[in-house]
Amino acid sequence: MTRARLRDLGIVVGSLPPGKWNAITDVPGVRVGHATLIRDEPTVVRTGVTAIWPRGPEIWRDYAYAAYHSFNGYGEMTGVVWLDEQGLLGAPIAITNTHCVGVVRDAICAYAVRERIDTAFHLPVVAETYDGRLSDAESFPVTRELAFAALDAAASGPVAEGNVGGGTGMMCHQFKGGIGSASRLATTKAGVFTVGALVQANYGARELLRVDGVPVGREIGPDVVPLPAGPSGADGGSIIVVIATDAPLLPIQCRRLARRATTGLAWVGGIGANGSGDIFLAFSTGNHVPHDLPVTEARSLAPEQMTPLFQAAAEATEEAILNALTAAETMVGYRGFTAHALPLDRLQEVMKRYRPASGTKRG
Amino acid sequence: MTRARLRDLGIVVGSLPPGKWNAITDVPGVRVGHATLIRDEPTVVRTGVTAIWPRGPEIWRDYAYAAYHSFNGYGEMTGVVWLDEQGLLGAPIAITNTHCVGVVRDAICAYAVRERIDTAFHLPVVAETYDGRLSDAESFPVTRELAFAALDAAASGPVAEGNVGGGTGMMCHQFKGGIGSASRLATTKAGVFTVGALVQANYGARELLRVDGVPVGREIGPDVVPLPAGPSGADGGSIIVVIATDAPLLPIQCRRLARRATTGLAWVGGIGANGSGDIFLAFSTGNHVPHDLPVTEARSLAPEQMTPLFQAAAEATEEAILNALTAAETMVGYRGFTAHALPLDRLQEVMKRYRPASGTKRG
Amino acid sequence: MTRARLRDLGIVVGSLPPGKWNAITDVPGVRVGHATLIRDEPTVVRTGVTAIWPRGPEIWRDYAYAAYHSFNGYGEMTGVVWLDEQGLLGAPIAITNTHCVGVVRDAICAYAVRERIDTAFHLPVVAETYDGRLSDAESFPVTRELAFAALDAAASGPVAEGNVGGGTGMMCHQFKGGIGSASRLATTKAGVFTVGALVQANYGARELLRVDGVPVGREIGPDVVPLPAGPSGADGGSIIVVIATDAPLLPIQCRRLARRATTGLAWVGGIGANGSGDIFLAFSTGNHVPHDLPVTEARSLAPEQMTPLFQAAAEATEEAILNALTAAETMVGYRGFTAHALPLDRLQEVMKRYRPASGTKRG
Amino acid sequence: MTRARLRDLGIVVGSLPPGKWNAITDVPGVRVGHATLIRDEPTVVRTGVTAIWPRGPEIWRDYAYAAYHSFNGYGEMTGVVWLDEQGLLGAPIAITNTHCVGVVRDAICAYAVRERIDTAFHLPVVAETYDGRLSDAESFPVTRELAFAALDAAASGPVAEGNVGGGTGMMCHQFKGGIGSASRLATTKAGVFTVGALVQANYGARELLRVDGVPVGREIGPDVVPLPAGPSGADGGSIIVVIATDAPLLPIQCRRLARRATTGLAWVGGIGANGSGDIFLAFSTGNHVPHDLPVTEARSLAPEQMTPLFQAAAEATEEAILNALTAAETMVGYRGFTAHALPLDRLQEVMKRYRPASGTKRG
Repeated sequence: MTRARLRDLGIVVGSLPPGKWNAITDVPGVRVGHATLIRDEPTVVRTGVTAIWPRGPEIWRDYAYAAYHSFNGYGEMTGVVWLDEQGLLGAPIAITNTHCVGVVRDAICAYAVRERIDTAFHLPVVAETYDGRLSDAESFPVTRELAFAALDAAASGPVAEGNVGGGTGMMCHQFKGGIGSASRLATTKAGVFTVGALVQANYGARELLRVDGVPVGREIGPDVVPLPAGPSGADGGSIIVVIATDAPLLPIQCRRLARRATTGLAWVGGIGANGSGDIFLAFSTGNHVPHDLPVTEARSLAPEQMTPLFQAAAEATEEAILNALTAAETMVGYRGFTAHALPLDRLQEVMKRYRPASGTKRG
Repeated sequence: MTRARLRDLGIVVGSLPPGKWNAITDVPGVRVGHATLIRDEPTVVRTGVTAIWPRGPEIWRDYAYAAYHSFNGYGEMTGVVWLDEQGLLGAPIAITNTHCVGVVRDAICAYAVRERIDTAFHLPVVAETYDGRLSDAESFPVTRELAFAALDAAASGPVAEGNVGGGTGMMCHQFKGGIGSASRLATTKAGVFTVGALVQANYGARELLRVDGVPVGREIGPDVVPLPAGPSGADGGSIIVVIATDAPLLPIQCRRLARRATTGLAWVGGIGANGSGDIFLAFSTGNHVPHDLPVTEARSLAPEQMTPLFQAAAEATEEAILNALTAAETMVGYRGFTAHALPLDRLQEVMKRYRPASGTKRG
Repeated sequence: MTRARLRDLGIVVGSLPPGKWNAITDVPGVRVGHATLIRDEPTVVRTGVTAIWPRGPEIWRDYAYAAYHSFNGYGEMTGVVWLDEQGLLGAPIAITNTHCVGVVRDAICAYAVRERIDTAFHLPVVAETYDGRLSDAESFPVTRELAFAALDAAASGPVAEGNVGGGTGMMCHQFKGGIGSASRLATTKAGVFTVGALVQANYGARELLRVDGVPVGREIGPDVVPLPAGPSGADGGSIIVVIATDAPLLPIQCRRLARRATTGLAWVGGIGANGSGDIFLAFSTGNHVPHDLPVTEARSLAPEQMTPLFQAAAEATEEAILNALTAAETMVGYRGFTAHALPLDRLQEVMKRYRPASGTKRG
Repeated sequence: MTRARLRDLGIVVGSLPPGKWNAITDVPGVRVGHATLIRDEPTVVRTGVTAIWPRGPEIWRDYAYAAYHSFNGYGEMTGVVWLDEQGLLGAPIAITNTHCVGVVRDAICAYAVRERIDTAFHLPVVAETYDGRLSDAESFPVTRELAFAALDAAASGPVAEGNVGGGTGMMCHQFKGGIGSASRLATTKAGVFTVGALVQANYGARELLRVDGVPVGREIGPDVVPLPAGPSGADGGSIIVVIATDAPLLPIQCRRLARRATTGLAWVGGIGANGSGDIFLAFSTGNHVPHDLPVTEARSLAPEQMTPLFQAAAEATEEAILNALTAAETMVGYRGFTAHALPLDRLQEVMKRYRPASGTKRG
C-alpha cells in the first residue's frame, strides 16, 4: 500500500496555512535526524532514535528558551527539572523507546565530549514511548552509536515519517503509528511566525480517532485480531510532542505553547489515558542565549499576540499525528504481532460520507 | 425562543451514559445554588453568584480531596495555594464575575462565622469570568448578601442553566453563554462512578465552535453586529469548570481529573486563547476527611481504573458547555449590547447536514 | 521600651552590604505604604493594609516580571494563577489579614477604576496572615477605603516596621511580630544590583528562633503566659515575603529568587509549620513590559550571575524578619491577650554570650 | 585521620531524638547499598552508585507514595514526571554521577527484567551530582553491572558514609563530601514516626558552612590550594536528599516533607547556588499500594500532625550532611587534585569557642 501525507489525500485539518515542508523543519534552523533499527535476530527489534536539533551545533553554546508540559505523566522525559529551573535547552533533543531513554541520554553527554564541547555541564532532554508490542524492548537494543547516528543524520527539509527513528515500533489509535510532523504559519501584529510540531505517536483507542471531527475510528471499527495483552492495550502507549517556533518567546511562554499540544491531541482523540505518557516540549529559536555573557538580550511576544501561536500549535500537533498515521506502514514484529496501517481508502471513504455534498468553505 | 438542553434536541456527544439529571448534582451530596442579579438602574447589571457545595454543610468539618488545573491562567481562582499544599476543600465553592471575586471570597468566610463554624481557618475557592460586555462590571455590583443567597439556595436535583448565577452575563463562542452542567457514569473494575461537570462558559471564537466534531460555528457564520472592542473580543472571556465525582480519589488523582476538562473544552473548540482564564477544579466525595482526627482513612482508585473517569470528565465538560449554549437566552445588556443565543434551529440543521444518511451506531 | 533595627543593636547577619535604607525601597522605584487600624470599639481591632508598588503608577501600563513560590501553602495569595501563566505584575501588591484578602483584592480593581486606568483587566496580588489573636478578625474590619489609604500612602525612603499596616496584629516566634524590611547589594559580572525584602511576619515557635545562628529563642525561654488556644498556637501564623530587585530577570528567574526566601526564613528558625502560610513573591524592576507593544525587549541576567542574588535574597529576608521582631512593640489586643515584644536587652545579652571573646572577622 | 559521625564528636544538632542507627535505615524496611569504583587506570576514576530500596523486593509490586521537590533544578532526577502524575514509587532509587544517570536508570529496568518482574512498565528514579573534580567523568565509568552491585548490596542497619557509592568523588562546602545519613523520631498524636534522610552532598561554599549555627567554614578559612576552575567551583556541585518515613502519608504530603530538606540544607549553609542541583525525594512506607488492586486503602496523617515530621526532616537532612562531612576522608583524584576532609580537631575547637562556658540545655 502506498502511504501518503494527510494533505496528499485531500484532507485538510485546521484553518492556518502550513509552511513550505509542512514540518517542524519549517522553523529555520531546526534539524531532524532518524536512526532506525530493524532486525529479526537474535530477537525481533523494531526501534530507533529520532534527534531534533533546535539549532545547528551552535546549540551547545547558543541556548534556546524552552519548557515542557506533562498532560499525563506516565512516561519519561529527562532534563525537565533543569527546564523548570532555567528554561534553557543547550543540547539536541532525542526520542526513543522506554527502556533505552538512559543510554540515549548519556549518549548526548558523550556526543558533547566527542565534539569537544567545553560548556561543561549538559542535562539533555530525551523522551520515550513504549514499543514492546512490536519490538523486544527487554533486549535493550539501542546503543550509544545508534544515538550518534540519529544526531549525525539531522538535516533540514522534509521529515521522514511513519516507521522511522524513535517511531519505528509505535502504534497509534490501535493502527500502526510512529513519527509525524506538520507546521503552521501564525500571523501576529509582530509578524508571521512558524510553529512546527513533531510527534512520536504511540497512544490511543481506535474508537476515539477523529479526523477533522469525523469519527473515523468508530466507522472503521475494531481490528479483527485484538492487541496482545499487558501494558500494550488501548490504554497503553504514549505521545511525545515537540513544538518549535521562531517567534521570540520566553520560557514561561514556551510552556504555554507546549500546553496547546493537549488541544491538538484532543482533536484527534487523545484523552490522556492512564497508561499514556503524554509529554510535550516547546522551544523558541527566536531568542539567542549565548552561554557565556553576563546578561543576554531577549524579545518577548506580547501576551495578546499569543493566540494565533496557540492555534498553530494545536493544529500542527493534530496534523502531525494524522501524518504519522497516514505515513506508517503495516509492520510485523515481536512474537509475530502485526500492527495494521490505517487504511487510506477507508479513511477517504468515511471522510467523504461525513461531509456535506455542497462544498463548504473553511473558516 | 424556547431553549433546551442539548439532548432534548436529539444531539448526543460522547459515548458514556449520563446520570439521572445529567448534571453535577448526580454526584450524591453535591448541591448547586444560584443568585442572579439583573437590573437596569443605576447602571445595567447582569451578574450573579453560583455556589457549589461538595457535600452539605458537613463540608466545614468533613473535608473533600480536591485539586485544580490551570490550562490558561488569565483569571482568578482563590484558594489554589492551599489546594496545592493540602489537597483539601473545607468550604463551599463559588463562581462570580471578575471584579467581585474578593467580596464573594470573604463572604464565604463570613458565612462560616454566621453559621458558627468553629473550624477556624478557611481558605475558600472562588473563581470568576468577565461579564463586562453585558454588565457594568466597574460598579462592583455583587454583595456579601448575594453570595449568601447563592449559598443558601443550593439544592440537589436539576441545575438551572444559561443566564443564571455567575453565568448571567457571560458569552461563549460569541453566542450568549453562562452556566451549564452534565454528567457521565464511568464503569471501572471498582464499580460504577458518577462524574459531573458544571461550567461557567464565557470564552471562545465562533468559528472554532464544534458540536460532536461538526463545525457548527463556521457554518452559522459571524454575527451581523460585531462584539464591542476591548478585552471583550473573541479572545477574551474565560471558562471555569468544576468537576465532581464520587469515585474515591486522592488529591493527586483529582488533579488528573481536572486536567481532562482541557480535552472536553478542545472538543467544543476552546484553545485557551490568551485572554481566556481556563481554570478547572476537581473534587472527590468518595473519601471523607474529618478535620479533627489525627489520622484519616482514604481509598484510592487504582491508576489503571482512571481512564473511564478521564473520558467521563472530558465528555461531561463538553456537554456542559453545549448545555450552557443551548440554554442561554439572547440578552440585551450594558451600553445596549446584545448577546445572541445560539439558534437552535440552525444548530439542528447543520448537525443533520453533516451526518451520514445511514444511521451509524456510536462507539 | 525603645525599639530599634537589628543593626542599631550592633548585630549583623549575613555578609553582603545593605542598601541606603536597608529596606525594599532601596530598589529604585519601589514604594511602600501602610494603613493601620487600631480601635477598641465596637470590638478590639488591630489590623491594617500594607501596599507595595513595584513602580509608581506606571505599573498599570509598564508591567514588571514576577513569580511566586509557596513554601507552605496554608494561606492565600490572589493572582498566582495569573503569575504562573504570564509572569507579569500589572498592579500594586497588598498584604492584610486573612479574612479581608477579598475586599483588598477587589479594592485594587476599584482603585484602577478610580484612577481611570483603561488597561481593562486586573488580577491583583494580595496576600494575608492571620491576626485573630490580637484582633477580632471575624468583624471583617478592613474596608476598601483602608486599602486605598495604604495605596495612596506609598512612598520611597525608610519603611515603617513592626506594628504597622498589614503587620499590625501579627506575632512572630511567639513574640510580637509585624512588618520588617531589609536589603542587600549583590555584585555580579553584570554590575551591582539591589535585592530588597519586605515581610509580614506572623509565624514560628519561640524555641526555634535564631539570630546569626545563636539560639536566642531557646535562651530567652517560653512566655510566662501561654498563647490562647486554637489556630493561634505556635504552629499557626504565616509569613509573606516580597522580594524586589533591579536586576534584569525573566519570570522564571524571579521564581528562583522567591524560593530563596525559604533559606532566609530557615536561618531565623522558620520550618514551614503546618499551619503557616509561607508564600513568597519576587519581582524585577530591571525589565519593562509596556502592555501595548506587540513585542517587548527584555534583558536576562545569566544563570551563573544569579548566586549573589540568591544570597542577597536569603540575607535580606533573614534581616527583614529580625527587623520586624526588634521593631514591634508589645501589644494588648482582643480578649485582653498581650503579645510581648522581643526583649532587646536579653537579645543583646544572649548574642554577646555566644560570641567568642576575640573579634572574628566576617567572611 | 580517623573519621567519625557528628555525634561521636560530641556535637548535637537539632532537638529531636535520632533512631537506632541514626540513619535512613531506621525507617523499617528501607535498605541501602553502595557500589564504589576507585581506580587509577586507564584514567583516574572516583565514582559509584548508591541504591535505596523503599521496601524490599516487594517494592516492584507494593508501591510506595512519593514526591519530589526541586529547590534548584541544576541537575537530573529521572522519573519525576511520573512522580508528579501518580505519586508512586515502584522500583528502587539510585544516585550516581552526572554523566551516568542514564546507564543506571536503564539498569534498573534491566534489573527488573533479570528478576522476572512482570509489572511491565518501570520509570525509575535516578539522581546525580557531579564528580568531575576528582574523577574522569568523561570516561563514563559506571556500568550496568556496577548498578546491579549497588542494588544487590542493599541492606538494613548502619549506612556507610563518606567516600562510598555515588558519593565517592563528591565535595561539600569545599571539603571532601559524599554520602551521609541521619534520622529523627517525631512524636504526633497518631504515634511516634521515624523520618530518615540520606544525602549525596556535593555542594556549597566553605564560608557559608555552619554547624548548629556556628560559622565553622568561616573560622577554618579557605583552602591553601584553590579548587580547579570550571563548573567545579564553589558554585558547582549539587545535593540529592532522599527522605523516608513510616508515617502514613499521601503523595501530596510526601511533597511537603521533601520541601523541608531545604530547611535542613539552609541550616548547614546551602543556598541553592545557581550551579547546584538541589533535588529532594520523599517517600512513605506507611501506606501500601499493591499494583494490581482496583482500589487501595490508605491512611493519611492529619495536616496538624505534620509539623513534627517537618522538623524531623529538616534536622535529619542537616545532620546527614554533617555526617557526610565528618565521615569523608581526604582524597587525591583526577589530575592530582586533592579534596581535603573537614579537619575534625578544628571543627571541635571552633564549636567549643562559640559555645557559652555554662552548659545550656537544649530545647
